[in-house]
Amino acid sequence: MTHSEDIKSIKNSDRHFIWHPFTQMKHWADSDPVVITEARDCFLKDEKGRWYLDAVSSLWVNIHGHKRKEIDDAVKAQLNKVAHTTLLGLANIPSAKLAEKLIYTTNKSFAGLMPRLSKVFYSDNGSTAVEVALKMAFQYWIHKRQPNKQQFVGIKNGYHGDTIGAMSVGSVEVFHGTFGPLFIKTLKAPSPYCYRCELKKTHPDCELACLDAMENILKADSENIAAVILEPMVQAAGGMIIWPEGYLKGVRELCTKYSVLLIADEVATGFGRTGKMFACEHESIAPDLLCISKGITNGYMPLAATIATDEIYDSFLGEFSELKTFFHGHSYTGNPLACAAAASSLNIFESDNTLTNMQPKAALLKQELNEIANLPIVGDVRSLGLIAGIELVKDKKTKESFPWEDAIGWKVAHKLREQGIIMRPLGNVLVVMPPLSILIDDLKYLLDSLKKTIIALVNEC
Amino acid sequence: MTHSEDIKSIKNSDRHFIWHPFTQMKHWADSDPVVITEARDCFLKDEKGRWYLDAVSSLWVNIHGHKRKEIDDAVKAQLNKVAHTTLLGLANIPSAKLAEKLIYTTNKSFAGLMPRLSKVFYSDNGSTAVEVALKMAFQYWIHKRQPNKQQFVGIKNGYHGDTIGAMSVGSVEVFHGTFGPLFIKTLKAPSPYCYRCELKKTHPDCELACLDAMENILKADSENIAAVILEPMVQAAGGMIIWPEGYLKGVRELCTKYSVLLIADEVATGFGRTGKMFACEHESIAPDLLCISKGITNGYMPLAATIATDEIYDSFLGEFSELKTFFHGHSYTGNPLACAAAASSLNIFESDNTLTNMQPKAALLKQELNEIANLPIVGDVRSLGLIAGIELVKDKKTKESFPWEDAIGWKVAHKLREQGIIMRPLGNVLVVMPPLSILIDDLKYLLDSLKKTIIALVNEC
Repeated sequence: MTHSEDIKSIKNSDRHFIWHPFTQMKHWADSDPVVITEARDCFLKDEKGRWYLDAVSSLWVNIHGHKRKEIDDAVKAQLNKVAHTTLLGLANIPSAKLAEKLIYTTNKSFAGLMPRLSKVFYSDNGSTAVEVALKMAFQYWIHKRQPNKQQFVGIKNGYHGDTIGAMSVGSVEVFHGTFGPLFIKTLKAPSPYCYRCELKKTHPDCELACLDAMENILKADSENIAAVILEPMVQAAGGMIIWPEGYLKGVRELCTKYSVLLIADEVATGFGRTGKMFACEHESIAPDLLCISKGITNGYMPLAATIATDEIYDSFLGEFSELKTFFHGHSYTGNPLACAAAASSLNIFESDNTLTNMQPKAALLKQELNEIANLPIVGDVRSLGLIAGIELVKDKKTKESFPWEDAIGWKVAHKLREQGIIMRPLGNVLVVMPPLSILIDDLKYLLDSLKKTIIALVNEC
Repeated sequence: MTHSEDIKSIKNSDRHFIWHPFTQMKHWADSDPVVITEARDCFLKDEKGRWYLDAVSSLWVNIHGHKRKEIDDAVKAQLNKVAHTTLLGLANIPSAKLAEKLIYTTNKSFAGLMPRLSKVFYSDNGSTAVEVALKMAFQYWIHKRQPNKQQFVGIKNGYHGDTIGAMSVGSVEVFHGTFGPLFIKTLKAPSPYCYRCELKKTHPDCELACLDAMENILKADSENIAAVILEPMVQAAGGMIIWPEGYLKGVRELCTKYSVLLIADEVATGFGRTGKMFACEHESIAPDLLCISKGITNGYMPLAATIATDEIYDSFLGEFSELKTFFHGHSYTGNPLACAAAASSLNIFESDNTLTNMQPKAALLKQELNEIANLPIVGDVRSLGLIAGIELVKDKKTKESFPWEDAIGWKVAHKLREQGIIMRPLGNVLVVMPPLSILIDDLKYLLDSLKKTIIALVNEC
């Protein structure tokens, strides 16, 4: 078979046999899909040999660039020993090494803060990391003889994954609206989404009224609440909503005050994406349970973890007959290949000096966004580290949104693709989330193309 | 660091930093864990250089043995191209090739049967494959203008994973009892567990009374029921309960009769484990939704899929504005590394002639189990293909169980470990589930050791 026949057959296989995630397959089946055949650094190559800048880190997972020799070598070396062995009743080297590295990393991130994260429970994706955290919180309170603490508080515009438990604590209508009847009952606090404040206040005059709303929920019902779950600093899938200073710290204080656990879902924000290793560091707080995934393996393969405090872990210790064991697990929990990749990726943070070297890029991004903010159809720009959202609006003054059917975000994405950039919007919010290793010139090209594309679109609108 | 210092440090890291799945960590922390350092064929090597027979396939995942050159090479070749690229808006080669292979495989398995499976939705583990199936079934009925069909029917002793949706449709008390208040409401049919029939009948005189019980549930409420979910032929985590002939086919017929979808969870039974590629083949039935994981990558790394019929898939097609899109996905959906491993593993079924070559081993297993059945503390033996359960009882006549605290299964497992065999029981049920590639002499050694160990235990009891 020639290369072009082979590619034609790949496209046919894709269209005939794959049901893509978050995709209206009627449109997909009619389209000519871009097939990514290889990748290098921050670039993806398609079946026609065209290279694209990976401006969304292959969906928020890539950190240090594609095809990192160190990680490739680590995975290959592990393949030469054992691809997988179970953590049910046995130990293995990569999972133990990675757990130590993860606790070292969180200890460094949350130095001097309480509570202290100390135990790693592995799973496979962000949704399961969240389900594990919810179940740990639920069972913790049974062990603490407060079995009524069964409810969870989420934050509006929050997104924590697509399994039923994870959907229940989230609230992004487009993702989860259909499945409402399946959800566990949860409480929802207002989102600190200053551009569209649901309390109709203006920051900073509001003095964080949304925090008062959270306090009212906790005060009213803390004896029935197990935990608050949130995405610290950035509600990602909800539209890259970046929180005002003081909100996260305030929630942490409220959780402590009302004896409710705090679950930080850093699946999207973890591993340097916001400019700190973990987003919680921006407000110098530590959660009781930390959920991580996505960037953990540098976007190589599935792995997730829920990291708990000793306070939580210790409550599960006992004799078999006390039935305090945490009965949860997945077949590939602590998979050696994925753990080897993740440990190598953590090493690269040091060898590349990733967190320091990304700062000028984050500054450039912020500066360019300030210019983009002046464009007619740009309602709001927001960024933290190398995460940015650009919210497009039909009317800048009234903040009237473009109708959903206009697919304005996709119009920008398609035009960018012609310029060699892969971007995926969230509704009317353009997302910029390149690998942290992006070269400053490539970031400039990305932001320049974005600006020009928005301007061209303004002229069309 | 010397090898022994390194191993000491690995053990410390494991004990200090890992929270193991399904494990009472008080006991683990006090133990001297076995660290698996490498593996080959059906054997695992520990930190002291001892080799063990992997009698549970590294927890039901390994099929063709460890360190298969073909799969190692496939993963390495893929690493040299791209470890991961997203299926959100893009295609990639390994996921397309694997999807075609999976549909080819199911078409062969279910040739001539209806419904026909045709579309692959990828995720990362068995729990998410099940959550996807539940959500697809739920949303399907909305599209078919029967939005009241929201309930699910599970089967007692069923196990479908540990996320909240998956737990809700399962019913193994020890795993999930604690979390009851979080569950979605489901209906449960009696388990066709002939050794301990909850309807107090005896097979075959019962004429499958449990099927009547299932019919009563469906008849009473089919307008509110979306789907029945079951593990075809073998309720694995529930105790390797093997179903009597006719039950599975009967449930398929009832689902069709009452217009309810059938979800087959073949996470544990798929990929040859029961002697057929899929367990549904034993009764010549096809499900509407098929969940697979575990053996899919030959136990190399996390991957799962939910395979749907065109009837279901087509109902999700429409314009964006119709909101029929299936809003579900995970970051690593269709991960190229895992898909490359899985495609290679499917090839090995052909090159090794796995399904044919396993038959004498399955026959040997059955024959040896018949002898084991005669031992005093053996209540029941059951097997299908290379899955077997041996249920130990305190009193063979009354079927009185050993008390839970006796940990009788673990006593056997520990004695087997001294004989170089890794086994993990399910309560009082001993599990035999070696890779399908096990050599017949190794299987003989395993069964012989098992028999001798049980006899030794009888003398102690």
